[in-house]
Amino acid sequence: MSEPTKFLLREEQIPTHWVNLLPDLPGDPLPPLHPGTKQPAGPDDLTPIFPMGLILQEVAQEPEVEIPEEVRQAYGLWRPTPLFRARRLEKALGTQTRIYYKYEGVSPAGSHKPNTAVPQAYENAKAGVKKLSTETGAGQWGSSLAFACSLFGLDCEVFMVGSSYDQKPYRRSMMQTWGATVHRSPSELTQSGKANAEHPTGSLGIAISEAVEVAAQDPDCNYSLGSVLNHVLLHQTVIGQEAILQMELAGDEPDVVIGCVGGGSNFAGLAFPFLRAGSKARFVAAEPAACPTLTRGVYSYDFGDTAGLTPLMPMYTLGHDFVPPPVHAGGLRYHGDAPMLCGLVKAGRIEARAYKQNETFEAAVRFARSEGIIPAPEPAHAIRAVIDEVERGDAKVILFGLCGHGNFDLAAYDAYLGGTLEDPEFSEADMDAALARLPEAPAIA
Amino acid sequence: MSEPTKFLLREEQIPTHWVNLLPDLPGDPLPPLHPGTKQPAGPDDLTPIFPMGLILQEVAQEPEVEIPEEVRQAYGLWRPTPLFRARRLEKALGTQTRIYYKYEGVSPAGSHKPNTAVPQAYENAKAGVKKLSTETGAGQWGSSLAFACSLFGLDCEVFMVGSSYDQKPYRRSMMQTWGATVHRSPSELTQSGKANAEHPTGSLGIAISEAVEVAAQDPDCNYSLGSVLNHVLLHQTVIGQEAILQMELAGDEPDVVIGCVGGGSNFAGLAFPFLRAGSKARFVAAEPAACPTLTRGVYSYDFGDTAGLTPLMPMYTLGHDFVPPPVHAGGLRYHGDAPMLCGLVKAGRIEARAYKQNETFEAAVRFARSEGIIPAPEPAHAIRAVIDEVERGDAKVILFGLCGHGNFDLAAYDAYLGGTLEDPEFSEADMDAALARLPEAPAIA
Repeated sequence: MSEPTKFLLREEQIPTHWVNLLPDLPGDPLPPLHPGTKQPAGPDDLTPIFPMGLILQEVAQEPEVEIPEEVRQAYGLWRPTPLFRARRLEKALGTQTRIYYKYEGVSPAGSHKPNTAVPQAYENAKAGVKKLSTETGAGQWGSSLAFACSLFGLDCEVFMVGSSYDQKPYRRSMMQTWGATVHRSPSELTQSGKANAEHPTGSLGIAISEAVEVAAQDPDCNYSLGSVLNHVLLHQTVIGQEAILQMELAGDEPDVVIGCVGGGSNFAGLAFPFLRAGSKARFVAAEPAACPTLTRGVYSYDFGDTAGLTPLMPMYTLGHDFVPPPVHAGGLRYHGDAPMLCGLVKAGRIEARAYKQNETFEAAVRFARSEGIIPAPEPAHAIRAVIDEVERGDAKVILFGLCGHGNFDLAAYDAYLGGTLEDPEFSEADMDAALARLPEAPAIA
Repeated sequence: MSEPTKFLLREEQIPTHWVNLLPDLPGDPLPPLHPGTKQPAGPDDLTPIFPMGLILQEVAQEPEVEIPEEVRQAYGLWRPTPLFRARRLEKALGTQTRIYYKYEGVSPAGSHKPNTAVPQAYENAKAGVKKLSTETGAGQWGSSLAFACSLFGLDCEVFMVGSSYDQKPYRRSMMQTWGATVHRSPSELTQSGKANAEHPTGSLGIAISEAVEVAAQDPDCNYSLGSVLNHVLLHQTVIGQEAILQMELAGDEPDVVIGCVGGGSNFAGLAFPFLRAGSKARFVAAEPAACPTLTRGVYSYDFGDTAGLTPLMPMYTLGHDFVPPPVHAGGLRYHGDAPMLCGLVKAGRIEARAYKQNETFEAAVRFARSEGIIPAPEPAHAIRAVIDEVERGDAKVILFGLCGHGNFDLAAYDAYLGGTLEDPEFSEADMDAALARLPEAPAIA
């Protein structure tokens, strides 16, 4: 073609290793703390719910971790994913900036989440575990884990936030089609569920507590988390490694790399390999104004879950029991962020920007009408940031992560096109409340 | 990888020509007949609703038709599509048969339909047309045309069958996201709509009549059809041409080629290039038992639409006003089939088989749990035929067309998994009624 639109790799170019950025991070690493003793938590604290294979990845200090061949084989079901030059968007924006995007929506579950669901299911199956439990909000993570479990013969039990369970029956059907059992949370199956019967619409925090409880009590069952943790970010680095090769094919080098941030695994997956390779690019993290962890949060130790059962992690946080407004980018509604990513923001290596819901969907519709793909509401934040960079005018080459399609989010588009989307923002009162809720823990710089 | 799972082509390997099988067909071609005079219909009969570029493709006698560069560029948004070796399905079936599938679900609309929507939008835009009108049932074709129109700056007006409009709001939102106007059919905008106000749930036949009426009355508007016609089948041959190259990469040659058939464009798109290349394979067309056009229909001249406004076409038909039961494979609920395909079935070059709804979904769930992708109900018929071929035991290499994903069909999976799917079949009484409804026209052999 005279003007190539997409850059494809061969199957054998699926990465052989994950990139572990831990040894590259600035400053001394801040350990997670045991929620009870507030002392550094070690691998043994994690064995009740994680297999040793994943725990070793969680604490690995090596710069690279080999990808098991069985995982690479399963990655072959959708990887390498395509990298596109957004020629039609460039034309629509009337810009000379060259815009590229790495598209993870080609996975069976429709997002980047299977990149970690597959190695998590693999390591658990290898350790003789029979079942994985997890929580899911809108269903993106639950369906990815259901898919991965079906590949490795594991049972999968998903606690789905009640309001989503009622509103998104298709995500539930998807999990069931892959053989998973889906419970509406709060359920009557766990103490955490019963204790929260007065919150019938549920929350991610309650669902996490239910899933962890099931895993902690059943020796054949482990728990699985879809973001935030080091090993999850590690698994996602297949994205950036492929993107580096594809940008070489395109003969270009990004001077701005953009991704959306919820827990941080999608962003890290794209950015970390570029950071490892010494890229001089600016890195921009886009988040919702309704849950502006990186732009408005406090850098502090905080719990990973609402109930305060998980280790304390050093991160930007809005307070572990902050409940963000129900924006449609469900994957970006987390009160904290991955500690590794937060450290890089703290060090100034990654910029963060927050966007409101309507300006985000406006960008998403422009993208859909030029490039064809209807983006999920989460990466629509990245697209908004891309358009801002273009309008600012100093970027020559932008690369962004399009981490999933919006096939299951069309009710949100319907609301946007119908003019009924709200634009909630984080307030000073929210901030004050967040500060008041922080657990006692050692201060961090 | 030691065991390659997928076979990818480079963007420059997108075909440069479409394969026109018309000159290869057995016997003398049977012309379409004018619905009023019953005399052969010529290009001039089509000019009120189609641009000359497409009419010339419709009647082309050349063995190949060049693909315009603008269309190839747009194809680059999702083509070449991947060809997979279904290693996990083979393992699940415990077979030595090698199974391959060509996956068209990676297009923005999620099926093979954009392969023809794009060149149709292009030719209309080139001819100065400002708007395209069409009908859609479940929404697959309407969303593909909406997507294609957004690429070429055309307005798009879709008449969506009333019952689907009410049941599938997400497909409607998808079309609107791409900028299309969607009307619930029957509407009050057309005579055909008003005349059918007593059928509030609508039908594909009524929706076609509405869309054709709009196009015939507005000089700036043309009509667009998603299957059946020669030029539509022509456009789909990009599928089979890519598959031939990919099977070469795999070092294999299919001895059975399988696809599902509704109007026939998906099947023809895969099969025709293999037929042109002299493949010795058996070709198997899979259709629903509820609408068994090829296995139970009469080979006769019949109208393409319910109201009897279109030319008469030589085809296997169940009667132009036959309304199939509401099986979930909405794309396979057409009373006839593409004349080119019917000719090959009549000549014995293509076999046809009909499958019931539950056995089809059983195959689809086996596929989803082994290969990951959740198939649309339409290609699930092909998967059922693949499993039958494997169980029959004489196929060494099977290639089938997986023409779309099932992300918008999860309500159907829900019904299957919940045990509430019905298994309607075509009856002798249906057949008698169909014979009684055939229009008077010259007999064909």
